[in-house]
Amino acid sequence: MQIVKKISKMQSLVKDIKSQGKTIGFVPTMGFLHEGHLSLIKTIKSKCDILIVSIFVNPTQFGPEEDFNNYPRDFNRDEGLCQVTGVDIIFYPSQNEIYEPPYLTFVEVDKLTKTMCGISRPGHFRGVTTIVCKLFNIVRPNIAIFGQKDYQQALVIKQMVKDLHFNIEILTEPIVREADGLAMSSRNRYLSREERKDALVLFQSLQMAEQMAREHKYAVEQIKNEMVKKIEEIPTAKIDYIAIVDPESLDPLEKIQSHTLIALAVYVGKTRLIDNILVENLAME
Amino acid sequence: MQIVKKISKMQSLVKDIKSQGKTIGFVPTMGFLHEGHLSLIKTIKSKCDILIVSIFVNPTQFGPEEDFNNYPRDFNRDEGLCQVTGVDIIFYPSQNEIYEPPYLTFVEVDKLTKTMCGISRPGHFRGVTTIVCKLFNIVRPNIAIFGQKDYQQALVIKQMVKDLHFNIEILTEPIVREADGLAMSSRNRYLSREERKDALVLFQSLQMAEQMAREHKYAVEQIKNEMVKKIEEIPTAKIDYIAIVDPESLDPLEKIQSHTLIALAVYVGKTRLIDNILVENLAME
Repeated sequence: MQIVKKISKMQSLVKDIKSQGKTIGFVPTMGFLHEGHLSLIKTIKSKCDILIVSIFVNPTQFGPEEDFNNYPRDFNRDEGLCQVTGVDIIFYPSQNEIYEPPYLTFVEVDKLTKTMCGISRPGHFRGVTTIVCKLFNIVRPNIAIFGQKDYQQALVIKQMVKDLHFNIEILTEPIVREADGLAMSSRNRYLSREERKDALVLFQSLQMAEQMAREHKYAVEQIKNEMVKKIEEIPTAKIDYIAIVDPESLDPLEKIQSHTLIALAVYVGKTRLIDNILVENLAME
Repeated sequence: MQIVKKISKMQSLVKDIKSQGKTIGFVPTMGFLHEGHLSLIKTIKSKCDILIVSIFVNPTQFGPEEDFNNYPRDFNRDEGLCQVTGVDIIFYPSQNEIYEPPYLTFVEVDKLTKTMCGISRPGHFRGVTTIVCKLFNIVRPNIAIFGQKDYQQALVIKQMVKDLHFNIEILTEPIVREADGLAMSSRNRYLSREERKDALVLFQSLQMAEQMAREHKYAVEQIKNEMVKKIEEIPTAKIDYIAIVDPESLDPLEKIQSHTLIALAVYVGKTRLIDNILVENLAME
């Protein structure tokens, strides 16, 4: 396994790989890898010749009041995990090279970014699409993979890839959960022991909502109200948003559809957590 | 010479070219080619194996009140000119495929686009960087070339290429002028016979400004005032802007520097024309 820090070195490696006719699979991450990332790595490993994982905590996707400085980082641990999962190259660039001053260019996806996480994190998705565009241009993958925990992010990236005509196949991978149901996230480590228990309310309220949706008896507003009620029972929890939306357009639904995304963001203490369930193939009456 | 309309066809051709280890030179145009374009084609021809010219009148770089619908188009004429200048492939995509609905993604360069043409044409450069990013991803050139008549555009594109880490060398080429000094532009054909004469005031005022700059006697404001005076003598002419700026940052200058860009946009009748002179290597006292 190689560790590459310089962009120019990465570019020349990519050129070599391409000239040998080999395909590149890519997993962009912010490091502090967990089972969710490893599941992405395992899935893409079998679909490419050379597997590249990038580790870069991207400043432009954090708001000024957010946790960029405190975001967990542990390169040695990440390196070990990449090694054992068969990663070929870790791309670990410096902030100064990725955003060489004066950087002035941003990539922005409209509409899909104006709802859900886009409301509470203005500029977040602009940061995401900008860094992914940069990384795609450097790594030039044939295939890249994103986790469904960040459902909106994956959708926004697919839209960017289509609109900008990147010749890259985008895969997504189901959410990986702890044994008790909490969605894996690098931010889970912010939780106190008490908050860790309280955080289960995200998945529990989603499961309840899915069941209600499958029962065909409840209006969207009723389902949302029950979710609110359940979450508000937890004193440390504060709802950022609950969304019941079309999984392609993210438009709010008036009625549950055969494909429905139920997503939410909840602060548990000071930690903002997100989770979602994609309800699929509901038999409609 | 091949004419390629479908994006997928272009992408597979590019893949073939790359797999043969050949380099691609690229001239993006809006068609209605003139000597300025041909000069770009000739310059890049010797620097690449395969020369691709795109012809696409890009709707997103026109404002709602601008001349998108009336912009001159003549594909047969362009085809002939490409043929005789040794173009290998004309990429001539459809608007519907380039901006397949619902397109939502835009590429934007900050700061450099907020001055000069960016003020009078809000959204223009966003349209330019978006289409160029799309075309770069489809054509994947090793080298691309832009004319200095659109000085600000070339600068903005260089910034985008650097910031998004496109592995593409960007060349620029001096302005090509008619015998009497008018900068070549597809929009010159909008001019009436009278306006065509009046339009000479752009270059004449720039030449006067360059001379004043070289004389080291005049303040920036004096030079601008003389330009205004000269242009206002022409009844059909209306100044959009006159800029005397740093050629890298486009920041307004308080004093003439050894490298100074003098640029202007002037309406002649209803036609908006631009021109500029890059004053270089002025001996400073």
